[in-house]
Amino acid sequence: MGKPIGVIDSGVGGLTVARELMRQLPKEKFIYLGDTLRCPYGPRPKDQVKEFTWQMVHYLMRRDIKMLIIACNTATAYTLNELQSVLPIPVIGVIEPGARAAIKSSRNKRIGVIGTEGTIKSQAYPEALKAIDHSMRVNGLACPPFVPMVENGILEGPEAEEIVSSTLLPLKEMNHIDTLILGCTHYPLIKDLVQKEMGSHINVISSGEETASETSLILAYHNVLEQGDSTPVHEFYTTGDMEKFRLVANRWFEEPIQVLKLIELEQFEKTAK
Amino acid sequence: MGKPIGVIDSGVGGLTVARELMRQLPKEKFIYLGDTLRCPYGPRPKDQVKEFTWQMVHYLMRRDIKMLIIACNTATAYTLNELQSVLPIPVIGVIEPGARAAIKSSRNKRIGVIGTEGTIKSQAYPEALKAIDHSMRVNGLACPPFVPMVENGILEGPEAEEIVSSTLLPLKEMNHIDTLILGCTHYPLIKDLVQKEMGSHINVISSGEETASETSLILAYHNVLEQGDSTPVHEFYTTGDMEKFRLVANRWFEEPIQVLKLIELEQFEKTAK
Repeated sequence: MGKPIGVIDSGVGGLTVARELMRQLPKEKFIYLGDTLRCPYGPRPKDQVKEFTWQMVHYLMRRDIKMLIIACNTATAYTLNELQSVLPIPVIGVIEPGARAAIKSSRNKRIGVIGTEGTIKSQAYPEALKAIDHSMRVNGLACPPFVPMVENGILEGPEAEEIVSSTLLPLKEMNHIDTLILGCTHYPLIKDLVQKEMGSHINVISSGEETASETSLILAYHNVLEQGDSTPVHEFYTTGDMEKFRLVANRWFEEPIQVLKLIELEQFEKTAK
Repeated sequence: MGKPIGVIDSGVGGLTVARELMRQLPKEKFIYLGDTLRCPYGPRPKDQVKEFTWQMVHYLMRRDIKMLIIACNTATAYTLNELQSVLPIPVIGVIEPGARAAIKSSRNKRIGVIGTEGTIKSQAYPEALKAIDHSMRVNGLACPPFVPMVENGILEGPEAEEIVSSTLLPLKEMNHIDTLILGCTHYPLIKDLVQKEMGSHINVISSGEETASETSLILAYHNVLEQGDSTPVHEFYTTGDMEKFRLVANRWFEEPIQVLKLIELEQFEKTAK
């Protein structure tokens, strides 16, 4: 078995990215680190997000990872460029893969993005889209009710449908997008509801799926795809409550997650530079 | 304007890849080289395909390209690894992007691939798929009538429908794929016909679309995305009959291709090492 791949997130949301990584790269071993203790990162100042992210990165670098995935929109927006230029391994975030997939998908160049208040305010998706094609027209909509709904396990039924429907109303009324980016790692869990609400003519893009596919390309590009055929045993770490993390994780994954250890915040601080 | 991107193909088929590249990367300038004089590459011995491909590569390297796209399945199968290890610029082919997109798309891990006799015989797609996930089950089908049909401009109507229907019959009868890779650069022009014949439950993947999206990632990854906002003027070269090339190209592109120069074979030979 070769080197593992590190996945960091502010909490549990990035597990949807990890799930896609495990599906699309079944030979690879992943080490997931969710900073549930200090979640969410969205409302925190930039310097603090950078500090917390670096603490996780330092831990994973000691584990000799071959690649790093930032499975958190806020951390991607604040740290991707720095990590890419400083770390000796490939680093990718979740924003650009979603943006590239939207450009591939859209025929009328009108794209919707839904996410947390922080992600929408940051303009990270419009900037990523316009950097490639400045004729893109992007409509962002913050959907604050979605994260608590998903974390409470409300993934289907009348209550979920009602929340999704009323939250997405401004986007439906706005104009004629043909592509919608799920710009928050929690949202893939309600993708079917969003798809139903927006209509089958809208291509709904899950950043996690695209991030996993781009990870596959980068590994191949650097000739570091896992060659063996042993079954990888993944590791999932949380900085917060283990039971709560395990509960959400096992609700989201098809198979129960076997390994789930706690890393104390102090350990982070010891490994920080 | 920064450096251009080179696209090579054995003939006109790669124009579908070029079209996608131009759509998804509207700021980038492309130089396309189609070796129509010596097309098709499929039946030729490996050493000859490598020789012809290198001749095109030498020409483009003199034009100071920043990246090379091999928009030809045969040339990709025979030369990608060598070009990737020798050239000082990023190189990608059309096979792996299609394979990665199929892995992303498939839920039941049963994938169909259609292509020329040469591509299907080469097992390039099954190998690329199984290298990432060896539980993939792949059914290949050679579709010899499709290339002449497309080059003759028969892209819709009863004749085209009949050819597509009867050619795809073995694949429809075979088993329960949920994803079909168009493993030939000509086929995106009959994607709608193939989709209709296979049914809406099958995700039909066009390698060109995926190759363009992966090109976008590699350019971003190396920080060489075009920054300016001048409109690029692309260049299209053929080694064979200019009028014939222009005829096919203008039938395929929404806007007529303005620049189209002939490069004599002798010029190739002069630039070969």
